[in-house]
Amino acid sequence: MARIYPVILCGGAGERLWPSSRAAYPKQFSPLLGQESLYQATLRRLSGPEFHAPLVLTAAEFRFLATEQAAALGLVDAEVLIEPAPRNTAPAILAAALRLADEPEALMLVAPSDHVIADEAAFAAALDIGAAAAGAGRIVAFGAQPTRAETGYGYLELAAPAPPGEAAAVARFVEKPDAVRAAAMAESGRHLWNAGIFLMRVGDALAAFEAHAPGLLAPCRGALAAAERDLGFLRLGPAWLEAEAISFDYAVMEKAEGIVAVPLEAGWSDLGSWDALWEAAPKDGSGVALSGAATAVDCRDALLRSEEPSMRLVGLGLEGIVAVAMRDAVLVASKERAQEVRGLVAMLKAAGAPQATDYPRFHRPWGWYETLCLDARFQVKRVMVKPGGVLSLQSHLHRSEHWVVVAGTAKVIVDGAERIVSETESIYIPLGAKHRMENPGKLPMYLIEVRTGAYLGEDDIIRHEDAYERK
Amino acid sequence: MARIYPVILCGGAGERLWPSSRAAYPKQFSPLLGQESLYQATLRRLSGPEFHAPLVLTAAEFRFLATEQAAALGLVDAEVLIEPAPRNTAPAILAAALRLADEPEALMLVAPSDHVIADEAAFAAALDIGAAAAGAGRIVAFGAQPTRAETGYGYLELAAPAPPGEAAAVARFVEKPDAVRAAAMAESGRHLWNAGIFLMRVGDALAAFEAHAPGLLAPCRGALAAAERDLGFLRLGPAWLEAEAISFDYAVMEKAEGIVAVPLEAGWSDLGSWDALWEAAPKDGSGVALSGAATAVDCRDALLRSEEPSMRLVGLGLEGIVAVAMRDAVLVASKERAQEVRGLVAMLKAAGAPQATDYPRFHRPWGWYETLCLDARFQVKRVMVKPGGVLSLQSHLHRSEHWVVVAGTAKVIVDGAERIVSETESIYIPLGAKHRMENPGKLPMYLIEVRTGAYLGEDDIIRHEDAYERK
Repeated sequence: MARIYPVILCGGAGERLWPSSRAAYPKQFSPLLGQESLYQATLRRLSGPEFHAPLVLTAAEFRFLATEQAAALGLVDAEVLIEPAPRNTAPAILAAALRLADEPEALMLVAPSDHVIADEAAFAAALDIGAAAAGAGRIVAFGAQPTRAETGYGYLELAAPAPPGEAAAVARFVEKPDAVRAAAMAESGRHLWNAGIFLMRVGDALAAFEAHAPGLLAPCRGALAAAERDLGFLRLGPAWLEAEAISFDYAVMEKAEGIVAVPLEAGWSDLGSWDALWEAAPKDGSGVALSGAATAVDCRDALLRSEEPSMRLVGLGLEGIVAVAMRDAVLVASKERAQEVRGLVAMLKAAGAPQATDYPRFHRPWGWYETLCLDARFQVKRVMVKPGGVLSLQSHLHRSEHWVVVAGTAKVIVDGAERIVSETESIYIPLGAKHRMENPGKLPMYLIEVRTGAYLGEDDIIRHEDAYERK
Repeated sequence: MARIYPVILCGGAGERLWPSSRAAYPKQFSPLLGQESLYQATLRRLSGPEFHAPLVLTAAEFRFLATEQAAALGLVDAEVLIEPAPRNTAPAILAAALRLADEPEALMLVAPSDHVIADEAAFAAALDIGAAAAGAGRIVAFGAQPTRAETGYGYLELAAPAPPGEAAAVARFVEKPDAVRAAAMAESGRHLWNAGIFLMRVGDALAAFEAHAPGLLAPCRGALAAAERDLGFLRLGPAWLEAEAISFDYAVMEKAEGIVAVPLEAGWSDLGSWDALWEAAPKDGSGVALSGAATAVDCRDALLRSEEPSMRLVGLGLEGIVAVAMRDAVLVASKERAQEVRGLVAMLKAAGAPQATDYPRFHRPWGWYETLCLDARFQVKRVMVKPGGVLSLQSHLHRSEHWVVVAGTAKVIVDGAERIVSETESIYIPLGAKHRMENPGKLPMYLIEVRTGAYLGEDDIIRHEDAYERK
């Protein structure tokens, strides 16, 4: 069988999993279940001899995360396409198909990066069934067997139940239903949850877009034609902004003929909210799911998650509660109200709370930093610089900085003078001095930065040169 | 009227209010309601022209906290008696009475330091009634009108209801009752909750101990006779350890004749658990009490408390829940299970969790410190040194330290060389160097300490000299 091109959609925000998932660090990059992030689990699931290197579509602010997390799995040949602005799934899938247009017979598998699939073998088996149908010219949708009357998903209505080992004809796509309709479909035996995973030949995808969403072609072709190579990323051109923001379901699947569906009995979940995460998580006999430094005493049907190793979360006598503790934010919610977390994030945003969107650890192309302590006139940060990582040549107008290297070795230039600063050594950066730091070593370098000054904001930075072409 | 001697009992632990209250920093020192700590509110309530300077009985580890928090109110003449070990209330009250024995006619008012009294005017009025009875030779107990069938308190059974403006004869003391008995007493009109507040002449107190608890006299007299002045504290001598650990209720009040009670219609609460704190706290129309950076969305009968300004606690759709967030620990509990928090602390202690007893901010005679970041080979601390504070002359075998002064001025001696380190400056303390730091200025001095080394424990310290006579 020909190898499949994975097309991984990695631009979403996942606000309903706040505080673990935020605009600055959305849920696909978090290890919500197990050690890997959802994106990494998706990459791994779609790697191996049956697959080409993946095409990843993401936003500019996540490009380094996308390549880093892939590299951490040993995947260095993923191609990352940068979407200049979010345009929903149809333009992204079309851009991927156009990128692969030289191989119209090749299969492309479109998959969200933020879902979970517990049973990898069952997924592989479903993929085999789908590949046979796709190879014969069908557009294949994968759908999970409903286990409850879920009103948060779209449904695939089958013309007849799928025979074992085969795809079934899709009679129609059903949008998110009301509770009555959802209950009927959950029991019908002819409905599957639309998992948002699609398999088709590149040529069939292009033909479907031409037939059903022709208006997307010019913007996506233009964006790809004007795409710029940027440190190994492919940044789509400005024509992208002309594309309508529309989902692949609306734009193509609901209109196309001859769609087939493959049932996915593989423990699929979109992890769309904390109750979905609770459903998918390993639980004890009382329905309690623990993660990190969390302890439950006499709790039932609860999710207790601490994301900070030094922060002990203790639940006592809880029932139907989700509690998530992070360094800068703690959510305690009734599990059945979990869908409302998105509204709560909007409320926090309106109130100007930085926790609504920012993440306590800020990821940068050279590594990351986090604030340990912020006061009116000083700030303490922990900074990690990757091997080979180089910060921009910069200066500040309102602060001076002390750096204490606590692990690894730093090469520092201050006003033209270069110095190697090794573990337990420190260096002082006076206000106004042009300085640059890099990690010339083979191991991550950690330093503690102590800033003092009347203004400590990140925007007090004049970048004189930047290896990552940031402005 | 003669001035009253306040005798403030300040040795308790208050584990049921974990994580806000812990062995290392018990609840009387925390601002659980409002801006002042409960201890400070008690001191303030018992200060003014009607009162002498207070006698405070506390444990050695809280002695600096006790004087600091008093000094923050402008109270510099409190006498602090250090109990070498906890012995419950009877020995503490006897020691205070013995300390005041030169003035047998003087009134002493015994009060716990960790209760709340909302209506100060009503308390003052009750005190006037009590003072009249105590001046006439009675031992006076204050009792709160029951508002529910509380099984967690002792009760005072009155011979008859108290006439307005007068004390009533106590028929007997009732220990913590079962629910049926509590319900009957709550409705009887003849029972008050025993608030643990007592007023009597010093001579009458001594006579009552002689009559009913004569075994306590020798140890307490011996402890006081051998008491040592220690930096302004009075440290009771070793005979103290011979005293039986027994409450004043058991030792004296339940046996003495002619006790009277004064009803305290003053919003009294012992704040003995999170549900009691919820009862006493200001609440919105839905019964939600918020404290610190906390937000409630559609919650009812809940307490949401964040003790860290940078940590946003959000409750969604909660009912009957207590959530308390601190930097190192988060409690989420069913409010009606709040009494079980003490058992939970015991469990954490058994599991070796430092959060069970330690507090994230460590109070020392010279100021305080807190850990911002702890890794295998480095640790970052924020240190505050009070004006005039002096750390011991010390050295370490396993770590070197960088200090960055971020506010105020430090005087530092390293291997005999003295240096003034001012704001934004830093100094390095090599492994093995004898060093001392002090704050010679008029303002608190803050510094960031970055330790590196193979072993970072606080016990890697050789103290060569110590201004606070610590070993």
